[in-house]
Amino acid sequence: MAPVKNGRILFNDIPSGYSEPGKTTIYDESETIDLNNAPLNSSFLIKTLILSINPYLRDKMQDPKDYGFAPHFDMNQPIANFSVGVIVHSENKGVKARDHLYDTFPFQEYFILPGLEDSRILKNKEGLLWSAYVGIAGMPGQTTYTAWREYAQAKKGETAFVTAASGPVGSLVVQFAKTNGMKVITSAGSDEKVAFVKSLRADVVFNYKKTKTADVLAKEGPINVYWDNVGSESFNAALTNTAQRARLVECGYITGYNGEGTPVKNMAVVFGKEITLYGFHVSSFLLKYKDEFYCEIPARVTK
Amino acid sequence: MAPVKNGRILFNDIPSGYSEPGKTTIYDESETIDLNNAPLNSSFLIKTLILSINPYLRDKMQDPKDYGFAPHFDMNQPIANFSVGVIVHSENKGVKARDHLYDTFPFQEYFILPGLEDSRILKNKEGLLWSAYVGIAGMPGQTTYTAWREYAQAKKGETAFVTAASGPVGSLVVQFAKTNGMKVITSAGSDEKVAFVKSLRADVVFNYKKTKTADVLAKEGPINVYWDNVGSESFNAALTNTAQRARLVECGYITGYNGEGTPVKNMAVVFGKEITLYGFHVSSFLLKYKDEFYCEIPARVTK
Repeated sequence: MAPVKNGRILFNDIPSGYSEPGKTTIYDESETIDLNNAPLNSSFLIKTLILSINPYLRDKMQDPKDYGFAPHFDMNQPIANFSVGVIVHSENKGVKARDHLYDTFPFQEYFILPGLEDSRILKNKEGLLWSAYVGIAGMPGQTTYTAWREYAQAKKGETAFVTAASGPVGSLVVQFAKTNGMKVITSAGSDEKVAFVKSLRADVVFNYKKTKTADVLAKEGPINVYWDNVGSESFNAALTNTAQRARLVECGYITGYNGEGTPVKNMAVVFGKEITLYGFHVSSFLLKYKDEFYCEIPARVTK
Repeated sequence: MAPVKNGRILFNDIPSGYSEPGKTTIYDESETIDLNNAPLNSSFLIKTLILSINPYLRDKMQDPKDYGFAPHFDMNQPIANFSVGVIVHSENKGVKARDHLYDTFPFQEYFILPGLEDSRILKNKEGLLWSAYVGIAGMPGQTTYTAWREYAQAKKGETAFVTAASGPVGSLVVQFAKTNGMKVITSAGSDEKVAFVKSLRADVVFNYKKTKTADVLAKEGPINVYWDNVGSESFNAALTNTAQRARLVECGYITGYNGEGTPVKNMAVVFGKEITLYGFHVSSFLLKYKDEFYCEIPARVTK
């Protein structure tokens, strides 16, 4: 068989503000690969099935001299993130052709991996869509699963506020908070997303582009748990409307990834209201919860 | 004996910005008391010996409609805070004349207390100055003692940064951090205070009015523990210069008590650096630690 195109998404320029496909990243088709004769040398060849685009990738596009919480992408190399791939050929005893793998992989149609390292073989006996394994059954689901258990200290009858509630992290937070008997206030960025979050039985759902977060929280709060994915205005509004001893789970700060974000004006209430604010990366919890997560979540998604 | 003057400090006006003695508070001598014939009705008469002035009293002067973390003072009534008084006469079986009491008392030369409630009888077998019981052996000392144990997670070789390091809270933090084997960076607001903090063996001491906190931390950090008494510029500088998984102990936010304080620009690093930020009031820990605190600290102060 003749070699085939091997398309890749390359990191091409450091963005200021939002990243721009075609400029800060480019699609490159200059390479080819001979699928049947690529030299494996005891490794294996993977075909990419699913790529995950997460907000935190923006952080990896920072200038190397600037602070970033994740390792920066290398210029002119493929960007990379959590993905699902299928083995095409294997000379590695750990995997065989047609096995599916989940790990951080390059944004590239085909690639050769020297070994399994941290990759997970997905058995998928539940028959989920493969895309679920980069969403609720992957890193975003693990993010919610682990940090909710570590930090939320959910109590029946208390109130939670969740931003970006239609996303893979936020939507699972909504469901956990409801399961724990909390009143759940949520924000999302479109009417379609609002409808989806309503279907998850959130008590209060609003489109933050049409309704001011501060007004909703003043009426529906005070809040005991704030699950923060976005920062800035939502963070300010949440701080002002917390109950005493609230827990603020800092899962992301999306509004700050493309610039400085809105300054926080009322930090003094962290002290005044005896608030605890937990910043975390899911990677710090993976070992602790990985096995029980894969045992529990994919099975629950099928129900 | 004829009645004597009974001077009081009354709350007279809600301050905007700094409070002003003579305006927001006034000294009033209009009342008198007959020390030998005041009707006690099974209670006791106290003479005030020591009054404590703490930054948080500013919060108690807020407009009742505004947020405050402590109960507001009543207009035209004496302000109140932690104090030491001595019993003049007692008809209460729990105390006798010449016993010394510590509690929140009105700023008033003489007053009658109906019962002991939360007041502590100070035996002072260590022979400390009575003023120590509103400082290192009182609420400020308890603040450091309890929250350092709850939150600092001090590790030998790590670095701590302490603001207001010459005060009764900060100076004890410096000593605890040094005892725990940490490198200790400190700020204070005058050369005299700097000299005092140096005498406590802090590793780095600077006058924040002459040297920029951000510059010192960039050179001497990153910091693993930030003991924050002041907020604003120090808070911003600390956030920028924390190590991964730093602990930020929010003990006070003095720069925010007289107004809004400097906005915080870089809150995104709380998430990025997996920081935990603990806001607390000492009152929430008193029951848990009170006995061991009084067992340990006054004795150590005498050494």
